[in-house]
Amino acid sequence: MTQVARAKQGVVTEQMAAVAKSEGLSPEAVRDGVAAGRIVIPGNVNRRFAPVGIGSGLRTKVNANIGTSPEHHDVAEEERKLQTAVAAGAHSVMDLSTGGDLFAVRKMVLEKSPVMVGAVPIYEVAARLSAESRAFYEMTPDMLFDAIERQCAEGLDYITVHCGVTRQAAALAGADRRVTGIVSRGGSLLAAWMHDHRKENPLYEEFDRLLGIAAAYDVTLSLGDGLRPGAVADASDGAQLQELVVLGDLARRARDADVQVMIEGPGHVPIDQIGANVQMQKALCGGAPFYVLGPLTTDCAPGYDHITGAIGGAVAAAAGADFLCYVTPSEHLCLPDIDDVRVGVIAARIAAHSGDIAKKVPGALDRDMQMSACRKALDWRGMYQAAIDPCLPRQRREASHPEEESVCTMCGELCAVKTHNRMTNP
Amino acid sequence: MTQVARAKQGVVTEQMAAVAKSEGLSPEAVRDGVAAGRIVIPGNVNRRFAPVGIGSGLRTKVNANIGTSPEHHDVAEEERKLQTAVAAGAHSVMDLSTGGDLFAVRKMVLEKSPVMVGAVPIYEVAARLSAESRAFYEMTPDMLFDAIERQCAEGLDYITVHCGVTRQAAALAGADRRVTGIVSRGGSLLAAWMHDHRKENPLYEEFDRLLGIAAAYDVTLSLGDGLRPGAVADASDGAQLQELVVLGDLARRARDADVQVMIEGPGHVPIDQIGANVQMQKALCGGAPFYVLGPLTTDCAPGYDHITGAIGGAVAAAAGADFLCYVTPSEHLCLPDIDDVRVGVIAARIAAHSGDIAKKVPGALDRDMQMSACRKALDWRGMYQAAIDPCLPRQRREASHPEEESVCTMCGELCAVKTHNRMTNP
Repeated sequence: MTQVARAKQGVVTEQMAAVAKSEGLSPEAVRDGVAAGRIVIPGNVNRRFAPVGIGSGLRTKVNANIGTSPEHHDVAEEERKLQTAVAAGAHSVMDLSTGGDLFAVRKMVLEKSPVMVGAVPIYEVAARLSAESRAFYEMTPDMLFDAIERQCAEGLDYITVHCGVTRQAAALAGADRRVTGIVSRGGSLLAAWMHDHRKENPLYEEFDRLLGIAAAYDVTLSLGDGLRPGAVADASDGAQLQELVVLGDLARRARDADVQVMIEGPGHVPIDQIGANVQMQKALCGGAPFYVLGPLTTDCAPGYDHITGAIGGAVAAAAGADFLCYVTPSEHLCLPDIDDVRVGVIAARIAAHSGDIAKKVPGALDRDMQMSACRKALDWRGMYQAAIDPCLPRQRREASHPEEESVCTMCGELCAVKTHNRMTNP
Repeated sequence: MTQVARAKQGVVTEQMAAVAKSEGLSPEAVRDGVAAGRIVIPGNVNRRFAPVGIGSGLRTKVNANIGTSPEHHDVAEEERKLQTAVAAGAHSVMDLSTGGDLFAVRKMVLEKSPVMVGAVPIYEVAARLSAESRAFYEMTPDMLFDAIERQCAEGLDYITVHCGVTRQAAALAGADRRVTGIVSRGGSLLAAWMHDHRKENPLYEEFDRLLGIAAAYDVTLSLGDGLRPGAVADASDGAQLQELVVLGDLARRARDADVQVMIEGPGHVPIDQIGANVQMQKALCGGAPFYVLGPLTTDCAPGYDHITGAIGGAVAAAAGADFLCYVTPSEHLCLPDIDDVRVGVIAARIAAHSGDIAKKVPGALDRDMQMSACRKALDWRGMYQAAIDPCLPRQRREASHPEEESVCTMCGELCAVKTHNRMTNP
């Protein structure tokens, strides 16, 4: 029985109690959120790890994408990425592998990850066909559902499924209507398949089949945004909103079937449109958790998209987004390496925390109060401890060799805190 | 005669025409903005460089702080910082030196900088007293005004003067009212001086003397926020707003005296308060340009404050802030090094550009359209050219050794753009 089914029965599960404790909420509040679909607690019935909730009233969570590509695949490196992401504070990892031994990577991640694990099952189908030099055209609905079922049985906690890429929605993303067309791998594959076969998206047509699989393992469905804008000029267009309308309807069906569901969101979005995007998602999808990729607030910063993504993610979180997928400095350029993973997680955590302060999540300011009290006291050890990354600040300060213990090389003796403390506590 | 005096006479100066051209506006629009005090074009009568405007309707500009500290001072290194900042796209540099030969550094910056140069004259007074082991208590108003006049004569284009740190305002920043008290060097020095002497801030009391100096050299006054919050918990408090009320009144007096003026702003501010801060500044200060430091949206990210600052700066720019002071990864830890300067400028430019897209500055989307068209065409050279930093993206991609020319190692053959292009242009 799924978390949402239990919640609807009024039961506070072990997972709900754990989430309530870590968030400082009452178990009943978490249970009611799960029952209403405003909170999900991803966790496959076949996996055990410390449960984490995602949704309204909770702290904003962060996901790190890892995984191989056809051009670069090494299981050991993926294990280091997993460890790096978790050490940096990721609440979730997604294995987006598309190259090498996909099963081996997923097995390693599912065994080793102390946090929830997501994946995009269609990638395996596409990668296998591609490795056999077969076109994705040859994909059959059964191949796709078989892959989904097998991966759910292996233990995935949530899966991205691009159910909202209907023929009608995909047509609205045609090249002449958009600057960059379709930029989601899953979305583009399904759009091409539908176009070539003149058939509807099987994930949409056979959504009940998907619900059956998800319910069996309590896998949370992350309804993918296959038509997300890949350029700020394409943001909030017909294709994106048409897909969101469909996802809203499917989210309702998932809740009715006792399946946990969250909604994925853009993408590339100007700052002034982010709030409206979050509000529309919440309104159309009955308050389901919103899982955003970025959003990136400009297209022009390749090499620094962790910063662009932190800007958009912070604004989205402040407006009510619940789950931030990190963006690394390698976005748009290459597969992330270990350091990209670390920096990507930190940047997303900064965004999430900035959002939590703004949306007034209870206790969000505690860490800032601790940091600022240490600053006032010129307590450097305390500052390191309160920092989102406790290592780098110490390294930077120590490498700069301050002559005096209490201050730093920025201001030295002219330290404002010191001046003000001297005045107020002479 | 100052730019604002000429503008009030209806004259379009060479500087106004140049700004209009680079912003794609009519010369008259720029002139009217300067006359009304909504736009400044900093430029000392004794310096020549390509003029840049700051203010309403213009692109958001970026400043890089460089300069020595008592603990670290090397003129050659400062010259490399200057070159790095300008190469990365800074529209302004401030020499905040407080250590070593201050005159030599400022002379170098004023001679070598192809962009506007600002400084904080009180630092020189404080540094000199400190070097002589004298307390700042010994500062006299004449010492301060002499330093201001001399530095203006040397050619500074704008100066930060903390005129709004009145006794009344400083009292509101007392330690028991704030988590971090006063965190501005200039603000803390003046507050301590006023406290010890039981006298009012000379920059406030003798504001007309300051106006006389500024008018003589057409130095733009950047009215400093000496009481800016140094913790998100201190944001938008009485001290900050009291100072802003005073600055609004002084801005009016500056405009009446034909002196160009802009207003400095916070600091550490939660995302949900940034818009209100910008609106209050614009309302209280008659639409004067707003020059913000960050703002930082959380206190907890030392080592990554260029990211925190980019979040806040982008939100502020989107809300109407006109000029972003960069924040580097070294903020709160040590004096920035060369790479901190580079990364700080890039992060601030990303924030400024993201803000310009949101506030719909004419032409702001052009670069994004160019980038996204290149992405759609898988034109990598074009992408590098359209990037805010054209070097790093090329380095990252080439270092990843993509097997195939057209795609990258993130998705390889499963490139969504390629899939969608194949479908739409078979």
